[in-house]
Amino acid sequence: MPEFVTFTVDRLREFTARVFESFGVPAADAAIAADVLAVSDLRGIDSHGVARLTTYYGLLKVGRLNPKPNITIVREFPSTATVDGDNGLGLVVAPKANEIAMDKADKVGTGWVAVRNTNHYGIAGWYVLEALKRDQIGWCMTNTSRITAPLWGTERMLGTNPIAIAFPGKVEPPIVIDMATTSAAFGKIEIAIRRGEPIPEGWAIDRDGYVTTDPHKMVDGGAMLPLGSNRELGGHKGYCLGAMVDILSGPLSGANWGPFTPAFAITHPDAMKPVGRGIGHFLGAMKIAAFIDVDEFKTQIDEWIRTFRKTKPAPGTHGPLIPGDPEREAEAIRSREGIPLVMPVVEDLRRIAKETGIPLE
Amino acid sequence: MPEFVTFTVDRLREFTARVFESFGVPAADAAIAADVLAVSDLRGIDSHGVARLTTYYGLLKVGRLNPKPNITIVREFPSTATVDGDNGLGLVVAPKANEIAMDKADKVGTGWVAVRNTNHYGIAGWYVLEALKRDQIGWCMTNTSRITAPLWGTERMLGTNPIAIAFPGKVEPPIVIDMATTSAAFGKIEIAIRRGEPIPEGWAIDRDGYVTTDPHKMVDGGAMLPLGSNRELGGHKGYCLGAMVDILSGPLSGANWGPFTPAFAITHPDAMKPVGRGIGHFLGAMKIAAFIDVDEFKTQIDEWIRTFRKTKPAPGTHGPLIPGDPEREAEAIRSREGIPLVMPVVEDLRRIAKETGIPLE
Repeated sequence: MPEFVTFTVDRLREFTARVFESFGVPAADAAIAADVLAVSDLRGIDSHGVARLTTYYGLLKVGRLNPKPNITIVREFPSTATVDGDNGLGLVVAPKANEIAMDKADKVGTGWVAVRNTNHYGIAGWYVLEALKRDQIGWCMTNTSRITAPLWGTERMLGTNPIAIAFPGKVEPPIVIDMATTSAAFGKIEIAIRRGEPIPEGWAIDRDGYVTTDPHKMVDGGAMLPLGSNRELGGHKGYCLGAMVDILSGPLSGANWGPFTPAFAITHPDAMKPVGRGIGHFLGAMKIAAFIDVDEFKTQIDEWIRTFRKTKPAPGTHGPLIPGDPEREAEAIRSREGIPLVMPVVEDLRRIAKETGIPLE
Repeated sequence: MPEFVTFTVDRLREFTARVFESFGVPAADAAIAADVLAVSDLRGIDSHGVARLTTYYGLLKVGRLNPKPNITIVREFPSTATVDGDNGLGLVVAPKANEIAMDKADKVGTGWVAVRNTNHYGIAGWYVLEALKRDQIGWCMTNTSRITAPLWGTERMLGTNPIAIAFPGKVEPPIVIDMATTSAAFGKIEIAIRRGEPIPEGWAIDRDGYVTTDPHKMVDGGAMLPLGSNRELGGHKGYCLGAMVDILSGPLSGANWGPFTPAFAITHPDAMKPVGRGIGHFLGAMKIAAFIDVDEFKTQIDEWIRTFRKTKPAPGTHGPLIPGDPEREAEAIRSREGIPLVMPVVEDLRRIAKETGIPLE
């Protein structure tokens, strides 16, 4: 049996869109939702791509997600909006909220949209790349179900709460920041378990709050640690960033927050009790021309990139990367050679293909 | 000889204002500039308070700062502005830019101001506390002179580039985040040198790019490390945050950026060459009522604070703090008992008092 099967991105995009459509998701929405997942795979972020289709599929199947949400603006100012996602797919709700932010930025310079009653939206990077198409700087955050302990805490209280922002270059490719506010992604714990390897000190604590290098102990009631890991190395700062993302996504929109943020997958235990509606996102867009001449900005970004690439390398490295480099390199390879999916993911997709009658291969 | 002398905050505020006025800084500007420094001391951030007056004094004395800047808006949209600080004190320019951001937020929901041709502005926390008075969420960032290596780099390319943001509670005190994007503050290196102690692994590298625990080796051509410290613990994320602050402050406003950001003190070596004007700030304000009912938001923030305070503590700790707790505790003590200044700072102030004829004690 092979270790993986390779698909073209177009194949995955079409299959995913048709799966969403089979639940009544309108074709235009399904196409965008499929694109968010496909771009994730294309950019090498396997954890957030079609690997998650089985979860969305399961949630749609049991009726826990609304395939045809009535997405509404519940409050707005010229540069702001609060959007209720009507329990739609985050992959449908967030792109619409992002459009609202970008439209407002075009008109009044910036647009900021807090979203409630929504669900997981894929990679934060997708949204900020959209803003680049309009010569805007995109911002994107979301809270997620609890897995991280605040510094000096033993319980899971925050999600991995990512922050993304992107800046366009002129000749150089854009600078794309897309990062969780934890010291490591949860996916790295799963990889360590599969390989039977220990994890570095600073990624996680066990259920009693002690730092652990045993990935099983994190999974068994332990928690991930915020960026900075411990007090000495600035773990309070990672906790602050996670809190910031949580508050902008949750209390500001009327969504759930902190430990109450609902779980992603149907197999996960539910959050404690609702304090709001669904999970929350916070999306922003800033029109570059509202601050400075666009060409001047892009020229400086090119210069910034070249300057940082020329930094004297640390021993044993090729020197600093520019944020977005690894994802762009993955995209170059995968758009040429296709996307290799590991067998458990392929089997999930084959099961969905069988159940829905939508051809995968 | 005593180790420190204690002053009331009012005494320091008045002395500082009069020193600024002696250079022709208008009384209203001098009062605000003095307040920024005094609040820093009050909140226990000794490194950014009157300890820095001697540097501002020196820069004003040699004419490197403009005491009466003509602060102008060079570009604006309803929710944005780019401000040229005319090489004024950051302590004068940034409060005005912050007012512009808050006024715009009152009108169109949010206000975002990029500032160029300015200088160091004190603590980022001061600005976001101002926004709270208007039921707004304040944001504040600035780039600073180079001291930090990007991950996998050996050279100083970025400053400590702080991010601040604050959220108001209803009954509970506000959540105030104010953090450098490095793993540790440079002040901690200086303390280690004074005490003859090593520094933890993860704070700094030496001039050849190797991680060092010798604080002297950092100072002698080494560099601070971004939050996350190394690749394994997420040092690329701290580098991304430092880059984000740098780009929003520099290229977006037309200020210098990265290694070109000019040095703070006259005794520091100058940056390489100018690519813009002065240093840059990025200030933002978001009107809470433009997103959600203010009372509802504050009630949720109270609940957030209480929920996180109840987190089961990690072994050997009293449990997680709420961002802003340490500064508020310092403020409670110091507004009652006064501000203890270490003797080197007292001597600096006494020298200024003697030179200007402004009474200190």
